[in-house]
Amino acid sequence: MATERLVVIGGDAAGMSAASQARRLKGPDELEIVAFERGHFSSYSACGIPYWISGDVAERDALIARTPAAHRERGIDLRMRTEVTEIDVAGQRVRARDLEAGTESWTGFDKLVVATGARPTRPPLPGIDAPGVHGVQTLDDGQALLDGLTTPGGRAVVVGAGYIGVEMAEAMLKRGYEVTVLNRGEQPMATLDPDMGRLVREAMEGMGITTVAGAEVAKILTGEDGRVSAVATESASYPADVVVLGMGVEPETTLARAAGLPLGAYGGLLTDPAMRVRGHENIWAGGDCVEVLHLVSGRDRHIALGTHANKHGQVIGTNAGGGYATFPGVVGTAVSKVCDLEIARTGLREKDAREVGLQYVTATIESTNSAGYYPGATLMTVKMLAERRTGRLLGVQIVGREGAAKRVDIAAVALTSGMTVEQLTALDLGYAPPFSPVWDPVLVAARKAVRAVRAAG
Amino acid sequence: MATERLVVIGGDAAGMSAASQARRLKGPDELEIVAFERGHFSSYSACGIPYWISGDVAERDALIARTPAAHRERGIDLRMRTEVTEIDVAGQRVRARDLEAGTESWTGFDKLVVATGARPTRPPLPGIDAPGVHGVQTLDDGQALLDGLTTPGGRAVVVGAGYIGVEMAEAMLKRGYEVTVLNRGEQPMATLDPDMGRLVREAMEGMGITTVAGAEVAKILTGEDGRVSAVATESASYPADVVVLGMGVEPETTLARAAGLPLGAYGGLLTDPAMRVRGHENIWAGGDCVEVLHLVSGRDRHIALGTHANKHGQVIGTNAGGGYATFPGVVGTAVSKVCDLEIARTGLREKDAREVGLQYVTATIESTNSAGYYPGATLMTVKMLAERRTGRLLGVQIVGREGAAKRVDIAAVALTSGMTVEQLTALDLGYAPPFSPVWDPVLVAARKAVRAVRAAG
Repeated sequence: MATERLVVIGGDAAGMSAASQARRLKGPDELEIVAFERGHFSSYSACGIPYWISGDVAERDALIARTPAAHRERGIDLRMRTEVTEIDVAGQRVRARDLEAGTESWTGFDKLVVATGARPTRPPLPGIDAPGVHGVQTLDDGQALLDGLTTPGGRAVVVGAGYIGVEMAEAMLKRGYEVTVLNRGEQPMATLDPDMGRLVREAMEGMGITTVAGAEVAKILTGEDGRVSAVATESASYPADVVVLGMGVEPETTLARAAGLPLGAYGGLLTDPAMRVRGHENIWAGGDCVEVLHLVSGRDRHIALGTHANKHGQVIGTNAGGGYATFPGVVGTAVSKVCDLEIARTGLREKDAREVGLQYVTATIESTNSAGYYPGATLMTVKMLAERRTGRLLGVQIVGREGAAKRVDIAAVALTSGMTVEQLTALDLGYAPPFSPVWDPVLVAARKAVRAVRAAG
Repeated sequence: MATERLVVIGGDAAGMSAASQARRLKGPDELEIVAFERGHFSSYSACGIPYWISGDVAERDALIARTPAAHRERGIDLRMRTEVTEIDVAGQRVRARDLEAGTESWTGFDKLVVATGARPTRPPLPGIDAPGVHGVQTLDDGQALLDGLTTPGGRAVVVGAGYIGVEMAEAMLKRGYEVTVLNRGEQPMATLDPDMGRLVREAMEGMGITTVAGAEVAKILTGEDGRVSAVATESASYPADVVVLGMGVEPETTLARAAGLPLGAYGGLLTDPAMRVRGHENIWAGGDCVEVLHLVSGRDRHIALGTHANKHGQVIGTNAGGGYATFPGVVGTAVSKVCDLEIARTGLREKDAREVGLQYVTATIESTNSAGYYPGATLMTVKMLAERRTGRLLGVQIVGREGAAKRVDIAAVALTSGMTVEQLTALDLGYAPPFSPVWDPVLVAARKAVRAVRAAG
């Protein structure tokens, strides 16, 4: 039997998980695996960058799950600093440029994995490339930011109040900076409904973080030395010694688009449940460059998250290695924290439900993370959405302190199973005074949601 | 319309939840509610007693959710220190004794709720009633124990290594006692498989708690003053200034048995899903005196737990108040802690699976509670049982530190939905470095269980 070649574009979570899993199933005599990565690092935790910036994680290398050398030892021909510049679908080959040598060459494939990730959203603002303005998407980004930090710190402006924005606000606070977060929307964490986002804003303000709502950045100002000096909106200017950009990401599908591969409404690759690019038997795609089925809305969505990328890679590698596996979809779970505030969401927000034509009721409750009499009990707010009439759980958002965020997993599993809020009320969840009130906060919310469903008729 | 009378036997979680919920649905003009409680307290958290003994909870009254006066204000005729001594099913009446006055009288009922709770297991050992030997089931028990504590503490022997035993071991340790736990079995926490119980024992020993396995108590020795002086097994004697009994509980169904109500294999009342005593249209039962359907094994089991009692009360009160609600059953979830060790289980242990004729595979993994590089990441051990061939999840046990116990809720919901371990591997659980590795420990266990199912054929 002739050796087949699997080519992987992208040496991070999805791509290298796929390569590793395929290698587990097929030895080098059966399957040659070539992976291209344009950056300096492979298989690292981009999600961990804020904790490295904050100083919680001391060493950059702690974020690297597996080095290029370790991949090569396992029989994966990982070519670093090599950027794929074209996919020739009909010819079954990719063109790659060695970024150090400047040379280009074609590599043929029998099977291809597209794992090109996401690119940070960068509006063409004046000054956005000035020294002192930093993204935090790659380890190189993180190193550049760290290299520019002053002690004890000055003024940091964070542009964007999504999860990267709030995590970086915490990181800069820990580095001794005065932190201002400029938020285009009215409330931080637009992945939450505004009533829950408001709780995050209030907590951030309580931590000494300045938050500015409705702040659309117009330009970034620089001083005589060319370095950033301030961030300006139409109506105000915020002095800055350092600027951190957390303006979201978009699927990096330039190559895929040029190759004629199918893209969705968000610009991400479209795949079948086996993560095979639709209409292409031997091409798979996964990670931040694909759209995934949202199981609650039934729509394809772009959700860039390391945990999905790893699962995609596992599924792709199994299939590319001759096995069978599928990725059924997501329910939109996300957790984050800013200092001791824990933030979680899963399923649909009010606006998501409206967009897909679902009528719903909401229930919001406050409860404690442990029995109310247990020392250190803290309040959390749980908001629940249920479909009108059917009572089907549609979504949960939680803002609280210790023990708040991971409670969202209860709802994530219930959403996956299509449970109603009435079914939720009977769940046999872990109870002991240090861990929960006798009715877990999620159950308290479910009980209120049951009444709301009934009242709505 | 004539006023109906609802009589409730037992003024704690199940009984008073039932009474309160019935009152919400029907006013005093429609439904008279009379509740009898033989003790001094109503609606308190027995589960909280160890934390009051330890000093974590400063005041006894913090454990009382609702006082008798508060119940009476809501139109419930709660009669304290009044013990029901007979149920006359055919005559629709109960006989009650006023424990202070010593008088007895009959009260008729249209509807009856039996919520007589559980009684602690007390083998007829010599010396078991000696001063210095304490149960911890009631607030009176707790007060008696606290009143007898010395400062800085002496030697405490805890008999029993179930969740009350380990919680009381922690409590006595916090009170400055040298603590010895006498365990009839080989490992503490018999609600876990022995391989997981071993982790608890090792951790307890690391905390300075002496644990003795295979220790069947033969008698309790007393000194010249009549107080406890030691606990003796056949082969050894353990000096004790105070002895705490945590030997489990049994359903308190003496009245129900005498009245001819149906009892199960564990001595608990048998009900239908509406918590109606089988064969009795107008009698309900709930809380620690009933057996409940275990949804994974399909058998009736006795599981005394406050969270179930509250749910039962809610269901009973709804039905007794003219509405409709059911309690579908349990999956056997329980969480507890001893110092910073967190312990959780749900579903079936190996021995439970064998007993009901289920063939299974197991998978045990170690993983961290947060990303491995995140500061303070600690290890937890997760053991998973899956049915052979079908791959259906059967049970999960977790022993770890912060963030370990409540992860069992993921499995509790999955068990309720009848998920397979393969389905578990795709769950969209909350991920961010402070809260979880990129694969949650439960998912890591599920992936290993999938391989075990496949390998078992």
